[in-house]
Amino acid sequence: MEFTKINEKVLDEIRAIVGAEFVFTQKEILEESSRDYTEDLRFLPEAVVRPANADEISRIMKICNRERIPVTPRGAGTGLSGGALPVCGGLVIAMSRFNKIIKIDERNLQAVVEPGVINQVFQDAVMEKNLFYPPDPASRGSCFLGGNLAESAGGPKAVKYGVTKDYVLNCEVVLPTGEIIWTGANVLKNSTGYNLTQLIVGSEGTLGIITKIVFKLLPLPTENLLMLVPFFSSEKACEAVSAIFRAGIIPSALEFMERDCIEYVMKFVDVKIPLKDNIQAHLLIEVDGTDRDVLFKECEKISELLYQYECDEVLFADTAQQKADLWRARRSAGEAVKSHSIYKEEDTVVPRAELPRLLKGVKEIGAKYGFRSVCYGHAGDGNLHVNIIKEAISDEDWNTKVPLGIREIFKLCVELGGTISGEHGIGYVQKGYLDIAFNKTQLDLMKGIKNLFDPNGILNPKKIFVN
Amino acid sequence: MEFTKINEKVLDEIRAIVGAEFVFTQKEILEESSRDYTEDLRFLPEAVVRPANADEISRIMKICNRERIPVTPRGAGTGLSGGALPVCGGLVIAMSRFNKIIKIDERNLQAVVEPGVINQVFQDAVMEKNLFYPPDPASRGSCFLGGNLAESAGGPKAVKYGVTKDYVLNCEVVLPTGEIIWTGANVLKNSTGYNLTQLIVGSEGTLGIITKIVFKLLPLPTENLLMLVPFFSSEKACEAVSAIFRAGIIPSALEFMERDCIEYVMKFVDVKIPLKDNIQAHLLIEVDGTDRDVLFKECEKISELLYQYECDEVLFADTAQQKADLWRARRSAGEAVKSHSIYKEEDTVVPRAELPRLLKGVKEIGAKYGFRSVCYGHAGDGNLHVNIIKEAISDEDWNTKVPLGIREIFKLCVELGGTISGEHGIGYVQKGYLDIAFNKTQLDLMKGIKNLFDPNGILNPKKIFVN
Repeated sequence: MEFTKINEKVLDEIRAIVGAEFVFTQKEILEESSRDYTEDLRFLPEAVVRPANADEISRIMKICNRERIPVTPRGAGTGLSGGALPVCGGLVIAMSRFNKIIKIDERNLQAVVEPGVINQVFQDAVMEKNLFYPPDPASRGSCFLGGNLAESAGGPKAVKYGVTKDYVLNCEVVLPTGEIIWTGANVLKNSTGYNLTQLIVGSEGTLGIITKIVFKLLPLPTENLLMLVPFFSSEKACEAVSAIFRAGIIPSALEFMERDCIEYVMKFVDVKIPLKDNIQAHLLIEVDGTDRDVLFKECEKISELLYQYECDEVLFADTAQQKADLWRARRSAGEAVKSHSIYKEEDTVVPRAELPRLLKGVKEIGAKYGFRSVCYGHAGDGNLHVNIIKEAISDEDWNTKVPLGIREIFKLCVELGGTISGEHGIGYVQKGYLDIAFNKTQLDLMKGIKNLFDPNGILNPKKIFVN
Repeated sequence: MEFTKINEKVLDEIRAIVGAEFVFTQKEILEESSRDYTEDLRFLPEAVVRPANADEISRIMKICNRERIPVTPRGAGTGLSGGALPVCGGLVIAMSRFNKIIKIDERNLQAVVEPGVINQVFQDAVMEKNLFYPPDPASRGSCFLGGNLAESAGGPKAVKYGVTKDYVLNCEVVLPTGEIIWTGANVLKNSTGYNLTQLIVGSEGTLGIITKIVFKLLPLPTENLLMLVPFFSSEKACEAVSAIFRAGIIPSALEFMERDCIEYVMKFVDVKIPLKDNIQAHLLIEVDGTDRDVLFKECEKISELLYQYECDEVLFADTAQQKADLWRARRSAGEAVKSHSIYKEEDTVVPRAELPRLLKGVKEIGAKYGFRSVCYGHAGDGNLHVNIIKEAISDEDWNTKVPLGIREIFKLCVELGGTISGEHGIGYVQKGYLDIAFNKTQLDLMKGIKNLFDPNGILNPKKIFVN
């Protein structure tokens, strides 16, 4: 793919569309858009534009498509697979002005929002109306809903309530060629034509730029209980996970944290978690609903079960503050590890009962290739975040030997019926591993879809596919 | 598209693959495969084959793709949009030998099944293990799971538990060109490449032939309560629907039946439903869960609410027999209407709070175009089945004037934020209306996808798209 550099004439055309004050070529702004939360990667764009609406994006895309200028859409830049990195330079379309909650429709339990709304801002707004938008990635305090759609983000509540894709009824999208379409309709069930909505969700900004989203909402659960369960063995903790579901209970969160993870977290945030010397891992288990008595019964049943897996004493979060602290600890796990060392984050996912085998395999592979990993994640979904720590590993080993180990980890995921990303996406950093999950026929279909939507390959190039 | 007729040489090739005893050209067998449950339509295929596995289908598809022979996959033939009609003749691939439940994985709450398994057979099998597969179309006693996937079938439980698409984690598919692929992985969350699974689900047998399905299962709810609520006004009944959700309750079923529908049903099946002269419609409301006391509280709250919408006395189904009778009545609505007259079934869907406006519009449009309609459906989902009765309408009006009225009904759906099929699909009979739901850009993307999967257009031709 041959791309063209942005010249002054093109910049003037774009300025005429959005206003000169929303087109940026200053070094500081380009620097800001050169990275996201992925490792220590940096790629400078040539210009950044902050359009106000779909029509402006449409006109910009027509110019870029005509001129063969690469375009990278950007939300809050909290992604962990490099989806927002402008790896070919070109233009970054920053979505920060798309920050309006257009409508919360209490009659239909739906909301219409722009993609630059922060996840938490939206959650709070619907909660005020006793409604519930469950998807809550760790970065919910800063990440944009548009980015959540692009990666089909998950979070702790996914185990009971599903991921972002399960809440998207319809979205407005600007295609790489500039047309604006809606992908579906504002309904709970839809057997009308192919499912373009679910093709856009999870497409990591490679098929179109999302400019409006229609979400389904739920009634707000009024009660929840939170337990912290220490285990003497990480593998026993993982084994306990599927037993809970087999007992007929679906917790609203079921998180796993290795000892190392908890230690990093306690150094990073001001939260005290009891951690005896012989404890190897914790499960953080939440149940929610509308009836407190029912939840107490569920917790009792869960506790009884867990003692069969050799856990230490189950601790209940008694106050709202204790609950908030535990969640803050869990949510800061990624940043806590990052503050300690450069790391590669692998977003492994397997059928949940295979978690013990995955965890065991990850440690064995790490030993073989000489790396240490800190593991935590959404155990109820079989989604384990494997943070591989650079520490004293040489740059050469980091770039050549460690990736061989990662290949082995991903191969193990696929052997166990899983795949290589549960909620972070493939983006830039995982594309070299996609051949583990898909063969040529599958990849050709996907690339065919990309080519259909984006014949000139200008939208978020060099993502998902190696070539 | 120029197709080729099946000749003896091709038949011999196919016989060599599947065995001569599974290739049929007898009139009776061709007749059987010439229709489904859609109106009174008939299209004779040239041959019918009953392959045993994906590999046989793959080899058959390679022949048909080479020879340009149209292929129509067929499940149980219970579809209502003509998806299984071999409208171009050619070969019918009947999936009846794909009838194995390969695995019910209690550890992971998953199942692997073949597409020719009957929905009810599968539901019963998982129920024996205290597990739950919710999608339950009215035809569940005979319809195949593969057909359920093809149309993303719904049913009464969809309002709380979602439709077929929400339970498909992964499927094995034979492409029109003969390659066999898996669409995803056996995991609850997946951000790895484009969502081919959800592209296949709901594609009505036009993109590939499903040969294996991996379903997600739930723990079985142990308790349920069922209420029948008579209303003096159909529109008030529809208005009451969204009030229930706004009160924070998600029923496990929320069905609407007009008076006419109930009268047809009582003539058709041996079930007695109380029906005073001044009753215009019923809501059938089920709640489910694990705690009987909680369910009683929910029913109390629902009853209180409904009395504000001027309902008559709420009736509880006290026994398992009463519950079974009410469900049998509801499930036989379509057949009951069909036994009375030829009819066209429109599968309208809107955001649920717009139901009263839809119902009112349907009746006004019927009056304008001179047709009577019997309405019932999944009110909790905003999914109203509009059965337009032929009765004394002339063939000419039936074929020219009535479709104009249907166009108006579908336009109203789209104006209200809805679309033209909620769970039955577009298939053969609704394709002439697809331009109401989608513009040229959207249709071109969908046709581009069709062309990518099926470059010779041999798989289930003349479905979904007019050309």
